[in-house]
Amino acid sequence: MPQRRRRSDCPIHFGLETFGDRWTLLVLRDLLLKGRSSYSDFLGAEERIATNILADRLARLQEDGLVVHGADGRYRPTAKALDLLPLLVEMILWSATYDQDTAAPAAFIERAREDRDALVAELRASCTPAEEPVP
Amino acid sequence: MPQRRRRSDCPIHFGLETFGDRWTLLVLRDLLLKGRSSYSDFLGAEERIATNILADRLARLQEDGLVVHGADGRYRPTAKALDLLPLLVEMILWSATYDQDTAAPAAFIERAREDRDALVAELRASCTPAEEPVP
Repeated sequence: MPQRRRRSDCPIHFGLETFGDRWTLLVLRDLLLKGRSSYSDFLGAEERIATNILADRLARLQEDGLVVHGADGRYRPTAKALDLLPLLVEMILWSATYDQDTAAPAAFIERAREDRDALVAELRASCTPAEEPVP
Repeated sequence: MPQRRRRSDCPIHFGLETFGDRWTLLVLRDLLLKGRSSYSDFLGAEERIATNILADRLARLQEDGLVVHGADGRYRPTAKALDLLPLLVEMILWSATYDQDTAAPAAFIERAREDRDALVAELRASCTPAEEPVP
């Protein structure tokens, strides 16, 4: 995988370099919000990701320390990935406001508007995290 | 500009379709967080966006209702763009945690961790919004 050249130290730019690819973020959505954890789970997502793109994005996510591929064949999120949950919730709230066709469940949106931090904590608790070495 | 085909009604997918391109989000960063509002301001960003990409992304942002090009030649954010501020702040917080080279000012990060909503309100107040017709 080629080394990615950094154009600035801007934190928005760093975020985009790590997960600012639409397929990457959809894989993270599946992993963090939809309970998907296997290669075939990800392939089954409604956006119909292509196998070569999926393999590439999973490799990048592992390289960037967001995902660990366990001995059981499951992909699991690290703390670095779980810490993207607040950002995903903000994205869902924004889309629920501006997309009349949004598929976000009304109860989820209501909960996010009422107590975003509690919802993020619940979502975090519902994920099976990767086993990471204690630093 | 070709019609963009929608692959799902997922709210994450909708967000990505609208601003999930890295250059688009960097233009929004300049507009919402760096007080940049002219074509030459955006061209001057440290990531060195190419003129054809900038023109394309500004056209898309206008088409998607995030930016208005005023009679004074300035690009201004609509409410739809200003409502992305919480997401941008979350992205900055995440990058400040995981990027040792981040350029985010320490005072900004501290303020975001202490009282995110107040910071978002301040950032919002510091932007000059587009004049939008009252719905």
